[in-house]
Amino acid sequence: MTMLTVYGDSISGNCLKVKFVCDRLAIPYRWVETSVLKAQTRTPEFLGMNPAGQVPVITLSDGRVLAQSNAIMLHLAEGSDLIPADAYERALMLQWLFWEQYSHETVIAVRRFHKAFLKKSDAEIDPTLLPKGERVLAVMEEHLAARSHFVGERLSLADIALVAYTRWGGEGGFNLPPHVQSWIRRIESELGLDHAA
Amino acid sequence: MTMLTVYGDSISGNCLKVKFVCDRLAIPYRWVETSVLKAQTRTPEFLGMNPAGQVPVITLSDGRVLAQSNAIMLHLAEGSDLIPADAYERALMLQWLFWEQYSHETVIAVRRFHKAFLKKSDAEIDPTLLPKGERVLAVMEEHLAARSHFVGERLSLADIALVAYTRWGGEGGFNLPPHVQSWIRRIESELGLDHAA
Repeated sequence: MTMLTVYGDSISGNCLKVKFVCDRLAIPYRWVETSVLKAQTRTPEFLGMNPAGQVPVITLSDGRVLAQSNAIMLHLAEGSDLIPADAYERALMLQWLFWEQYSHETVIAVRRFHKAFLKKSDAEIDPTLLPKGERVLAVMEEHLAARSHFVGERLSLADIALVAYTRWGGEGGFNLPPHVQSWIRRIESELGLDHAA
Repeated sequence: MTMLTVYGDSISGNCLKVKFVCDRLAIPYRWVETSVLKAQTRTPEFLGMNPAGQVPVITLSDGRVLAQSNAIMLHLAEGSDLIPADAYERALMLQWLFWEQYSHETVIAVRRFHKAFLKKSDAEIDPTLLPKGERVLAVMEEHLAARSHFVGERLSLADIALVAYTRWGGEGGFNLPPHVQSWIRRIESELGLDHAA
Protein backbone atom coordinates (compact mmCIF):
# COMPACT_ATOMS: atom_id res chain seq x y z
CA MET A 1 0.00 0.00 0.00
CA THR A 2 1.28 3.46 -0.83
CA MET A 3 0.84 5.84 2.05
CA LEU A 4 1.86 9.25 3.22
CA THR A 5 5.66 9.60 3.22
CA VAL A 6 7.44 12.23 5.32
CA TYR A 7 10.99 13.23 4.34
CA GLY A 8 12.35 14.75 7.52
CA ASP A 9 15.41 15.34 9.66
CA SER A 10 14.87 14.29 13.28
CA ILE A 11 16.99 17.19 14.58
CA SER A 12 14.63 19.69 12.87
CA GLY A 13 11.69 21.10 14.79
CA ASN A 14 10.06 21.96 11.46
CA CYS A 15 10.10 18.26 10.55
CA LEU A 16 8.93 17.07 13.96
CA LYS A 17 5.85 19.34 13.64
CA VAL A 18 4.64 16.99 10.89
CA LYS A 19 5.34 13.91 13.04
CA PHE A 20 3.48 15.47 16.00
CA VAL A 21 0.38 16.14 13.86
CA CYS A 22 0.39 12.65 12.30
CA ASP A 23 0.78 10.99 15.68
CA ARG A 24 -1.89 13.18 17.29
CA LEU A 25 -4.40 12.51 14.51
CA ALA A 26 -3.41 8.82 14.08
CA ILE A 27 -2.48 9.36 10.41
CA PRO A 28 -0.27 6.47 9.20
CA TYR A 29 3.00 7.56 7.59
CA ARG A 30 6.42 6.37 6.53
CA TRP A 31 9.34 8.51 7.81
CA VAL A 32 12.37 8.82 5.54
CA GLU A 33 15.25 10.28 7.55
CA THR A 34 16.82 13.03 5.41
CA SER A 35 19.86 14.73 6.91
CA VAL A 36 20.49 18.42 6.28
CA LEU A 37 24.05 18.18 7.68
CA LYS A 38 24.83 15.26 5.32
CA ALA A 39 23.44 17.36 2.40
CA GLN A 40 20.75 14.77 1.66
CA THR A 41 18.47 17.72 0.83
CA ARG A 42 20.84 18.72 -2.00
CA THR A 43 20.74 15.52 -4.09
CA PRO A 44 19.18 15.70 -7.57
CA GLU A 45 16.42 13.32 -6.40
CA PHE A 46 15.51 15.52 -3.44
CA LEU A 47 15.69 18.78 -5.43
CA GLY A 48 13.41 17.14 -7.99
CA MET A 49 10.79 16.86 -5.25
CA ASN A 50 11.46 20.25 -3.66
CA PRO A 51 13.52 22.78 -5.67
CA ALA A 52 13.81 24.88 -2.49
CA GLY A 53 15.97 22.10 -0.99
CA GLN A 54 14.24 22.21 2.38
CA VAL A 55 12.77 19.58 4.70
CA PRO A 56 10.10 18.60 5.59
CA VAL A 57 8.53 17.42 2.37
CA ILE A 58 5.65 14.97 2.16
CA THR A 59 4.41 12.84 -0.70
CA LEU A 60 0.73 11.97 -0.59
CA SER A 61 -0.55 8.47 -1.38
CA ASP A 62 -0.97 9.51 -5.05
CA GLY A 63 2.63 10.81 -5.24
CA ARG A 64 1.84 14.52 -5.16
CA VAL A 65 4.38 16.60 -3.23
CA LEU A 66 3.91 19.27 -0.56
CA ALA A 67 6.57 21.37 1.23
CA GLN A 68 6.70 23.93 4.07
CA SER A 69 6.09 22.57 7.58
CA ASN A 70 3.14 24.81 8.42
CA ALA A 71 1.41 24.26 5.06
CA ILE A 72 1.83 20.49 5.55
CA MET A 73 0.33 20.67 9.07
CA LEU A 74 -2.62 22.73 7.80
CA HIS A 75 -3.27 20.20 5.03
CA LEU A 76 -3.03 17.11 7.25
CA ALA A 77 -5.10 18.66 10.06
CA GLU A 78 -7.89 19.99 7.83
CA GLY A 79 -11.24 19.20 9.43
CA SER A 80 -9.66 18.18 12.76
CA ASP A 81 -9.89 19.87 16.15
CA LEU A 82 -6.30 21.15 15.75
CA ILE A 83 -7.79 23.95 13.60
CA PRO A 84 -10.33 26.21 15.37
CA ALA A 85 -13.85 26.14 13.94
CA ASP A 86 -14.37 29.87 14.60
CA ALA A 87 -13.19 32.06 11.70
CA TYR A 88 -11.46 34.67 13.88
CA GLU A 89 -9.71 32.05 16.03
CA ARG A 90 -8.61 30.30 12.86
CA ALA A 91 -7.17 33.61 11.62
CA LEU A 92 -5.31 34.09 14.91
CA MET A 93 -3.88 30.58 14.60
CA LEU A 94 -2.62 31.49 11.10
CA GLN A 95 -1.22 34.77 12.48
CA TRP A 96 0.90 32.79 14.95
CA LEU A 97 1.97 30.30 12.26
CA PHE A 98 3.31 33.09 10.04
CA TRP A 99 4.90 34.84 13.03
CA GLU A 100 6.59 31.56 13.95
CA GLN A 101 8.20 31.20 10.54
CA TYR A 102 9.13 34.87 10.14
CA SER A 103 10.16 36.04 13.62
CA HIS A 104 10.67 32.93 15.79
CA GLU A 105 12.20 30.10 13.75
CA THR A 106 14.70 32.47 12.12
CA VAL A 107 16.09 33.31 15.56
CA ILE A 108 15.37 30.51 18.07
CA ALA A 109 16.01 27.63 15.66
CA VAL A 110 18.90 29.31 13.87
CA ARG A 111 20.92 30.06 17.03
CA ARG A 112 20.39 26.46 18.25
CA PHE A 113 21.60 25.12 14.89
CA HIS A 114 24.77 27.22 14.96
CA LYS A 115 25.50 26.44 18.62
CA ALA A 116 24.43 22.80 19.00
CA PHE A 117 25.05 21.39 15.50
CA LEU A 118 27.62 23.60 13.76
CA LYS A 119 29.39 23.78 17.18
CA LYS A 120 30.17 27.47 16.85
CA SER A 121 31.33 29.43 19.88
CA ASP A 122 29.13 32.31 21.07
CA ALA A 123 31.62 34.77 19.54
CA GLU A 124 31.20 33.16 16.11
CA ILE A 125 27.38 33.43 16.16
CA ASP A 126 25.52 36.51 14.88
CA PRO A 127 25.39 38.68 18.03
CA THR A 128 21.90 40.02 17.20
CA LEU A 129 20.28 36.58 17.63
CA LEU A 130 20.42 36.55 21.43
CA PRO A 131 18.60 39.89 22.03
CA LYS A 132 16.16 39.13 19.18
CA GLY A 133 15.38 35.77 20.78
CA GLU A 134 14.80 37.41 24.16
CA ARG A 135 12.23 39.73 22.54
CA VAL A 136 10.55 36.77 20.79
CA LEU A 137 10.31 34.90 24.10
CA ALA A 138 8.99 38.06 25.82
CA VAL A 139 6.15 38.27 23.26
CA MET A 140 5.29 34.64 23.99
CA GLU A 141 5.56 35.14 27.77
CA GLU A 142 3.22 38.13 27.70
CA HIS A 143 0.70 36.22 25.59
CA LEU A 144 0.83 33.13 27.81
CA ALA A 145 0.64 34.99 31.12
CA ALA A 146 -3.17 34.68 31.13
CA ARG A 147 -3.66 31.82 28.65
CA SER A 148 -3.21 28.04 28.63
CA HIS A 149 -2.70 27.85 24.83
CA PHE A 150 -1.95 30.30 22.04
CA VAL A 151 -5.50 30.38 20.65
CA GLY A 152 -8.89 29.55 22.13
CA GLU A 153 -7.65 27.90 25.34
CA ARG A 154 -7.08 24.56 23.64
CA LEU A 155 -4.42 22.78 21.60
CA SER A 156 -4.13 24.03 18.01
CA LEU A 157 -1.49 24.03 15.28
CA ALA A 158 -0.21 27.33 16.74
CA ASP A 159 0.99 25.51 19.87
CA ILE A 160 2.51 22.64 17.85
CA ALA A 161 4.38 25.03 15.53
CA LEU A 162 5.70 27.16 18.38
CA VAL A 163 6.62 24.36 20.79
CA ALA A 164 8.75 22.57 18.19
CA TYR A 165 11.78 24.83 18.62
CA THR A 166 10.88 26.64 21.85
CA ARG A 167 11.28 23.39 23.85
CA TRP A 168 14.88 23.28 22.57
CA GLY A 169 15.52 26.93 23.44
CA GLY A 170 18.12 25.97 26.04
CA GLU A 171 20.26 24.34 23.33
CA GLY A 172 20.36 27.74 21.63
CA GLY A 173 21.47 29.44 24.85
CA PHE A 174 18.10 31.07 25.60
CA ASN A 175 16.57 31.33 29.07
CA LEU A 176 12.92 30.32 28.91
CA PRO A 177 10.59 32.54 30.96
CA PRO A 178 8.23 30.86 33.49
CA HIS A 179 4.90 30.95 31.62
CA VAL A 180 6.64 29.71 28.48
CA GLN A 181 8.13 26.83 30.51
CA SER A 182 4.72 25.83 31.92
CA TRP A 183 3.17 26.00 28.47
CA ILE A 184 5.95 23.79 27.01
CA ARG A 185 5.28 21.09 29.63
CA ARG A 186 1.54 21.36 28.97
CA ILE A 187 1.90 20.93 25.20
CA GLU A 188 4.53 18.18 25.54
CA SER A 189 2.13 16.33 27.83
CA GLU A 190 -0.79 16.75 25.41
CA LEU A 191 1.38 15.45 22.56
CA GLY A 192 2.70 12.55 24.65
CA LEU A 193 6.32 13.75 24.42
CA ASP A 194 9.11 13.42 26.93
CA HIS A 195 10.21 16.75 28.36
CA ALA A 196 13.01 18.07 26.14
CA ALA A 197 14.94 20.40 28.43
CA MET B 1 -20.37 53.08 10.81
CA THR B 2 -17.38 51.20 12.09
CA MET B 3 -15.64 49.31 9.34
CA LEU B 4 -12.49 47.38 8.65
CA THR B 5 -9.41 49.50 9.42
CA VAL B 6 -6.01 48.74 7.90
CA TYR B 7 -2.91 50.13 9.61
CA GLY B 8 -0.32 50.06 6.86
CA ASP B 9 2.78 51.69 5.41
CA SER B 10 2.42 52.40 1.68
CA ILE B 11 6.09 51.60 1.03
CA SER B 12 5.57 48.08 2.41
CA GLY B 13 4.60 45.25 0.07
CA ASN B 14 3.28 43.31 3.07
CA CYS B 15 0.81 46.13 3.72
CA LEU B 16 -0.17 46.54 0.06
CA LYS B 17 -1.12 42.84 -0.06
CA VAL B 18 -4.04 43.69 2.24
CA LYS B 19 -5.03 46.65 0.06
CA PHE B 20 -4.88 44.49 -3.10
CA VAL B 21 -7.20 41.87 -1.55
CA CYS B 22 -9.70 44.44 -0.26
CA ASP B 23 -9.79 46.23 -3.63
CA ARG B 24 -10.09 42.97 -5.58
CA LEU B 25 -12.95 41.69 -3.38
CA ALA B 26 -14.62 45.14 -3.03
CA ILE B 27 -14.29 45.05 0.77
CA PRO B 28 -14.69 48.60 2.19
CA TYR B 29 -11.87 49.71 4.49
CA ARG B 30 -10.25 52.70 6.10
CA TRP B 31 -6.45 52.98 5.55
CA VAL B 32 -4.43 54.50 8.39
CA GLU B 33 -0.96 55.34 7.09
CA THR B 34 1.54 54.06 9.67
CA SER B 35 5.19 54.76 8.92
CA VAL B 36 7.88 52.27 9.92
CA LEU B 37 10.66 54.81 9.21
CA LYS B 38 8.95 57.37 11.48
CA ALA B 39 8.66 54.67 14.20
CA GLN B 40 4.86 54.93 14.22
CA THR B 41 4.86 51.16 14.79
CA ARG B 42 6.72 51.69 18.11
CA THR B 43 4.23 53.93 19.91
CA PRO B 44 2.49 52.56 23.03
CA GLU B 45 -0.85 52.75 21.17
CA PHE B 46 0.43 50.68 18.25
CA LEU B 47 2.24 48.15 20.47
CA GLY B 48 -1.00 47.79 22.42
CA MET B 49 -2.61 46.54 19.20
CA ASN B 50 0.33 44.45 18.02
CA PRO B 51 3.07 43.66 20.56
CA ALA B 52 5.24 42.44 17.66
CA GLY B 53 5.41 46.07 16.42
CA GLN B 54 4.82 45.11 12.78
CA VAL B 55 2.51 46.40 10.05
CA PRO B 56 0.06 45.54 8.58
CA VAL B 57 -2.49 45.22 11.35
CA ILE B 58 -6.23 45.28 10.84
CA THR B 59 -9.06 45.93 13.24
CA LEU B 60 -12.35 44.29 12.34
CA SER B 61 -15.67 46.11 12.62
CA ASP B 62 -16.05 44.80 16.20
CA GLY B 63 -12.59 46.06 17.16
CA ARG B 64 -10.80 42.71 17.21
CA VAL B 65 -7.21 42.83 15.97
CA LEU B 66 -5.36 40.66 13.46
CA ALA B 67 -1.69 40.86 12.37
CA GLN B 68 0.57 39.16 9.78
CA SER B 69 -0.07 40.07 6.14
CA ASN B 70 -0.69 36.53 4.90
CA ALA B 71 -3.00 35.64 7.81
CA ILE B 72 -4.96 38.84 7.15
CA MET B 73 -5.29 38.01 3.44
CA LEU B 74 -6.45 34.46 4.25
CA HIS B 75 -9.08 35.81 6.66
CA LEU B 76 -10.42 38.50 4.32
CA ALA B 77 -10.46 36.19 1.28
CA GLU B 78 -12.14 33.25 3.00
CA GLY B 79 -14.85 31.85 0.72
CA SER B 80 -13.66 33.89 -2.28
CA ASP B 81 -12.09 32.66 -5.53
CA LEU B 82 -8.68 33.91 -4.36
CA ILE B 83 -8.45 30.67 -2.33
CA PRO B 84 -8.57 27.45 -4.41
CA ALA B 85 -11.53 25.17 -3.69
CA ASP B 86 -9.46 22.01 -4.18
CA ALA B 87 -7.75 20.85 -0.95
CA TYR B 88 -4.38 20.09 -2.58
CA GLU B 89 -4.30 23.35 -4.53
CA ARG B 90 -5.20 25.19 -1.32
CA ALA B 91 -2.26 23.44 0.40
CA LEU B 92 0.08 24.48 -2.45
CA MET B 93 -1.12 28.07 -2.09
CA LEU B 94 -0.28 27.92 1.63
CA GLN B 95 3.11 26.38 0.79
CA TRP B 96 3.94 29.42 -1.37
CA LEU B 97 2.62 31.83 1.30
CA PHE B 98 4.96 30.36 3.91
CA TRP B 99 7.85 30.23 1.43
CA GLU B 100 7.22 33.88 0.61
CA GLN B 101 7.56 34.96 4.25
CA TYR B 102 10.49 32.67 5.08
CA SER B 103 12.66 32.66 1.95
CA HIS B 104 11.51 35.54 -0.29
CA GLU B 105 10.48 38.55 1.80
CA THR B 106 13.53 38.17 4.05
CA VAL B 107 15.79 38.65 1.01
CA ILE B 108 13.96 40.52 -1.77
CA ALA B 109 12.15 42.99 0.51
CA VAL B 110 15.03 43.39 2.93
CA ARG B 111 17.64 44.31 0.29
CA ARG B 112 15.20 46.82 -1.26
CA PHE B 113 14.60 48.40 2.15
CA HIS B 114 18.33 48.79 2.85
CA LYS B 115 19.08 50.10 -0.65
CA ALA B 116 16.07 52.28 -1.48
CA PHE B 117 14.97 53.52 1.96
CA LEU B 118 17.96 53.30 4.32
CA LYS B 119 20.06 54.51 1.32
CA LYS B 120 22.92 52.14 2.05
CA SER B 121 25.60 51.55 -0.56
CA ASP B 122 25.99 48.02 -1.93
CA ALA B 123 29.12 47.59 0.21
CA GLU B 124 27.13 48.34 3.37
CA ILE B 125 24.46 45.73 2.62
CA ASP B 126 24.76 42.09 3.73
CA PRO B 127 26.64 40.54 0.76
CA THR B 128 24.71 37.25 1.00
CA LEU B 129 21.40 38.91 0.03
CA LEU B 130 22.22 39.28 -3.68
CA PRO B 131 23.07 35.60 -4.38
CA LYS B 132 20.20 34.46 -2.10
CA GLY B 133 17.81 36.66 -4.06
CA GLU B 134 19.06 35.27 -7.35
CA ARG B 135 18.29 31.74 -6.10
CA VAL B 136 14.82 32.84 -4.92
CA LEU B 137 14.08 34.37 -8.34
CA ALA B 138 15.43 31.22 -10.06
CA VAL B 139 12.93 29.08 -8.09
CA MET B 140 10.12 31.40 -9.23
CA GLU B 141 11.38 31.44 -12.83
CA GLU B 142 11.51 27.64 -13.02
CA HIS B 143 8.00 27.38 -11.58
CA LEU B 144 6.57 30.01 -13.93
CA ALA B 145 8.25 28.68 -17.08
CA ALA B 146 5.20 26.52 -17.85
CA ARG B 147 2.55 28.24 -15.72
CA SER B 148 0.49 31.44 -15.86
CA HIS B 149 0.01 31.65 -12.08
CA PHE B 150 1.59 30.04 -9.02
CA VAL B 151 -1.29 27.64 -8.35
CA GLY B 152 -4.09 26.24 -10.50
CA GLU B 153 -3.58 28.52 -13.54
CA ARG B 154 -5.58 31.32 -11.99
CA LEU B 155 -5.10 34.24 -9.60
CA SER B 156 -4.79 33.22 -5.93
CA LEU B 157 -3.33 34.68 -2.75
CA ALA B 158 -0.01 33.05 -3.71
CA ASP B 159 0.34 35.45 -6.66
CA ILE B 160 -0.71 38.46 -4.61
CA ALA B 161 1.75 37.65 -1.80
CA LEU B 162 4.64 37.04 -4.19
CA VAL B 163 4.03 39.94 -6.55
CA ALA B 164 3.99 42.50 -3.73
CA TYR B 165 7.78 42.69 -3.41
CA THR B 166 8.88 40.94 -6.61
CA ARG B 167 7.52 43.84 -8.71
CA TRP B 168 9.89 46.13 -6.79
CA GLY B 169 12.86 43.77 -7.26
CA GLY B 170 14.69 46.34 -9.36
CA GLU B 171 14.73 48.76 -6.41
CA GLY B 172 16.63 46.06 -4.49
CA GLY B 173 19.16 45.68 -7.30
CA PHE B 174 17.80 42.36 -8.57
CA ASN B 175 17.50 41.43 -12.24
CA LEU B 176 14.11 39.89 -12.86
CA PRO B 177 14.14 36.84 -15.17
CA PRO B 178 11.79 36.83 -18.22
CA HIS B 179 8.98 34.52 -17.04
CA VAL B 180 8.91 36.36 -13.72
CA GLN B 181 8.60 39.67 -15.61
CA SER B 182 5.68 38.40 -17.72
CA TRP B 183 3.95 37.04 -14.62
CA ILE B 184 4.37 40.41 -12.81
CA ARG B 185 2.66 42.25 -15.70
CA ARG B 186 -0.11 39.61 -15.76
CA ILE B 187 -0.82 39.92 -12.03
CA GLU B 188 -0.54 43.74 -12.05
CA SER B 189 -3.05 43.80 -14.89
CA GLU B 190 -5.47 41.47 -13.05
CA LEU B 191 -5.20 43.63 -9.93
CA GLY B 192 -5.63 46.86 -11.94
CA LEU B 193 -2.20 48.20 -10.91
CA ASP B 194 0.18 50.40 -12.86
CA HIS B 195 3.37 48.63 -13.82
CA ALA B 196 5.89 49.21 -11.01
CA ALA B 197 9.25 48.83 -12.71
